Amino acid sequence: MTSTIAPPVPTSFVPRAAGSLFAPVAADIEEADRVFAATLAPYQGPFGPLVQHLRHYRGKRLRPALLLLAGKACGGIVPAHHTLAAAVEMIHTATLVHDDVLDEAEVRRHVSTVNAGWGNKVSILLGDMLFTHAFHLTSTVDGRACGIIGAATNRVCAGELRQVTERGNLDLTEADYFAVIDGKTAALTECCGRLGALYAGASEEVAERLANYGRALGRAFQIADDLLDLVGDETTAGKTLGTDLVQQKLTLPVIHCLGRLAPVEANRLRDVIRAGDGAAVLAALRRTESLAFARFRADELARAARAELAALPRSDARTVLEALPEWAVRREQ
Amino acid sequence: MTSTIAPPVPTSFVPRAAGSLFAPVAADIEEADRVFAATLAPYQGPFGPLVQHLRHYRGKRLRPALLLLAGKACGGIVPAHHTLAAAVEMIHTATLVHDDVLDEAEVRRHVSTVNAGWGNKVSILLGDMLFTHAFHLTSTVDGRACGIIGAATNRVCAGELRQVTERGNLDLTEADYFAVIDGKTAALTECCGRLGALYAGASEEVAERLANYGRALGRAFQIADDLLDLVGDETTAGKTLGTDLVQQKLTLPVIHCLGRLAPVEANRLRDVIRAGDGAAVLAALRRTESLAFARFRADELARAARAELAALPRSDARTVLEALPEWAVRREQ
Repeated sequence: MTSTIAPPVPTSFVPRAAGSLFAPVAADIEEADRVFAATLAPYQGPFGPLVQHLRHYRGKRLRPALLLLAGKACGGIVPAHHTLAAAVEMIHTATLVHDDVLDEAEVRRHVSTVNAGWGNKVSILLGDMLFTHAFHLTSTVDGRACGIIGAATNRVCAGELRQVTERGNLDLTEADYFAVIDGKTAALTECCGRLGALYAGASEEVAERLANYGRALGRAFQIADDLLDLVGDETTAGKTLGTDLVQQKLTLPVIHCLGRLAPVEANRLRDVIRAGDGAAVLAALRRTESLAFARFRADELARAARAELAALPRSDARTVLEALPEWAVRREQ
Repeated sequence: MTSTIAPPVPTSFVPRAAGSLFAPVAADIEEADRVFAATLAPYQGPFGPLVQHLRHYRGKRLRPALLLLAGKACGGIVPAHHTLAAAVEMIHTATLVHDDVLDEAEVRRHVSTVNAGWGNKVSILLGDMLFTHAFHLTSTVDGRACGIIGAATNRVCAGELRQVTERGNLDLTEADYFAVIDGKTAALTECCGRLGALYAGASEEVAERLANYGRALGRAFQIADDLLDLVGDETTAGKTLGTDLVQQKLTLPVIHCLGRLAPVEANRLRDVIRAGDGAAVLAALRRTESLAFARFRADELARAARAELAALPRSDARTVLEALPEWAVRREQ
């Protein structure tokens, strides 16, 4: 691999929507979509409308795009990449279907959730079915892929479980927060970077770099997501916002703010959180510049992600991977 | 493999509890239990009581015992058998944890369910975690095992989903019923028979026989389970019974009864089911000898299961496999 200096990323290259950003792998994302659809095709009969409804759950395609871009940047895309891209998207979809049950969410991406339309029972079983089909799909590649995806999904589920059991813990630390988001988000994006590189024939060292890239990107993406939940626009986001505070899930800005306040003030803020006064929480976050702090952390991670790409040969896929962290932290939905 | 005639099974050999029946593989079941516990050991810290509570979900060990007995009867048990036995038990446990959420059950095996103690959210995520750990555990064996267990679990989840979507369908046919139980129960027992044989080095043909054995055993077991739900004793069973009728899930005796009645009478029975009058339903089932019919079908399947063992060499494991179907249909819990 040629060692080159990463070119500066022109800001104009970072589009609002992920779709155009993923242009170099657009056809491959479509192929992964076909694998996804073919896997669920046997259920079109008995559960037609339910399976059809799942396409509303498929938004940015961040995870398959990342896996495919890593493959393209590390030597080229092969059929295993499409299968694995479909599998990681299926795992992500499974977690979304179950998340909506956990959050009692009624709307996602501007349409009603599976639980709102079919009830919690169907949602639980549909999520289970997506998990098992993702694993079976992965087994058509090889045992190594099963091990990597299995380990990542273990971390995803443990992270989600930890998040639920930490609800209402208003003493959560920054380390606790990162342990949660490393599980629920960064484990899968890390796995995407690794799989993309490995199945393109990259060395373990390069695969480790791409895994690091994926982890940093996932962390940055999640911090940005948590910021959107606090200060985003519901119409643009296409989902209910402010749910973290309602559920007393502490995210980075709130943890930072509590740490900056004197103990008496911090306890007063905890009471405000318990009382569910979102406006007062936001005012406190602005006073301690905690939103800016979280954005700084996200930017730092975005830079760290880009740095992992330095040794890759120049290619259109590498250019997109370089732009992706910037998009992840600047997006409005 | 030596072709021998199956010896008659002495009825006295069939114990009430599965524990003593599984004596020839007792040490191997314990080893599988250790693998199960070791897999969840990293969560003893953050989720200690929750992980501890799971041991109450582990009852008969039918699936690991079946896998291990098949291995022993087909050439001998190797470490892969213990890993796979733990994985199938983990998948079964995952489905039980999610089933209890679906059924809003409060008691299982005489103790409170995970959902009763920790709520539905924790139950959903714990079930997910068990699924993913089962798959990751399987990946430590090889890709073939991932494919076999993945395919079986796909069928388990699809069967469960079909059962939920068929609730309230009082025109369910016997074929529909078998499609549901083939998924929710027989797919996994079939997989246990197949894996036990394959990892003992058996030929594809012998593995197919053991898979057929597992499928017939699973069907017989489920029919017996459904009979227990209608006429069993709650204290012996250790769980709430009569739930199938409450949830308007038609099982074999009810389907048979509806088919035996004149259309007008059948519609009257459907009204009785909708009204939730369990005693009146039982009276109808007795009039049409539908409980006896279901027992006959279960016995038929038990015989079919035993017939698949005819070509196996004599061994203590084979003797137990021969006795198992009889136990499955005669048990009281």
